[in-house]
Amino acid sequence: MFELDPCLEQDSVFIIDLPLCQLRMENDQRFPWLLLIPRQQGLVEVTELSAAQQQQLIQESCRVSNALKKLTGCKKINVASLGNVVAQLHWHVVARFESDAAWPGPVWGAGEAQPWNEKERDEFIAALLHQLNLSAP
Amino acid sequence: MFELDPCLEQDSVFIIDLPLCQLRMENDQRFPWLLLIPRQQGLVEVTELSAAQQQQLIQESCRVSNALKKLTGCKKINVASLGNVVAQLHWHVVARFESDAAWPGPVWGAGEAQPWNEKERDEFIAALLHQLNLSAP
Repeated sequence: MFELDPCLEQDSVFIIDLPLCQLRMENDQRFPWLLLIPRQQGLVEVTELSAAQQQQLIQESCRVSNALKKLTGCKKINVASLGNVVAQLHWHVVARFESDAAWPGPVWGAGEAQPWNEKERDEFIAALLHQLNLSAP
Repeated sequence: MFELDPCLEQDSVFIIDLPLCQLRMENDQRFPWLLLIPRQQGLVEVTELSAAQQQQLIQESCRVSNALKKLTGCKKINVASLGNVVAQLHWHVVARFESDAAWPGPVWGAGEAQPWNEKERDEFIAALLHQLNLSAP
């Protein structure tokens, strides 16, 4: 059974379940920032996934990266798995702009999150799902 | 033809060529910090690799992550592709410790690099190659 870490649950919103990962969005409107969380209990490192799951992870990461880049027109996509604070394996896909609040530094630990306006967030998620050719669950 | 970005060349040392990537080590003894650089000209985003290359990248990342974790006994492996400063596609694999200079924050942009002592660096690289079951080129 898959249980989401309470910190991840609190700081991000559910978008959709992909074949391997739950796709979520960080509730921080400074950065278009997605999370991929493999839906398997007890994972910490990418290396703990099977070889097939590792391949699925990079495939879902690239699928989401392409959609996010098309949707936002960002300068750069940042992808990462850190897990120094929250142990449960989670994979970041972040759209970066030269004008954003942390450029060119990393987004982790950079200032305080600014929660999305709920309507704008829902519109962003709807547009992302459209880019992914997926329907809202 | 593959040409390494001058900044990557200056800040890291060559270890070995893997099937897809050149494996290098950042010259910063605060963190055991490896780089994987796909040996193909003009790459910026992970999504620009073919599907087969993406799978090879995650495979090489996990192979190197496992070796680095065994060698260092680190608390956590951080993997990432940022590229906000140096555009050429490069993939970080960093061994993190609760006692390290940036924990639990990210290593990018954290203070000043402290160059390795050359002898210690060469010993570290030799031990890493041993963990990877590879011989020095």
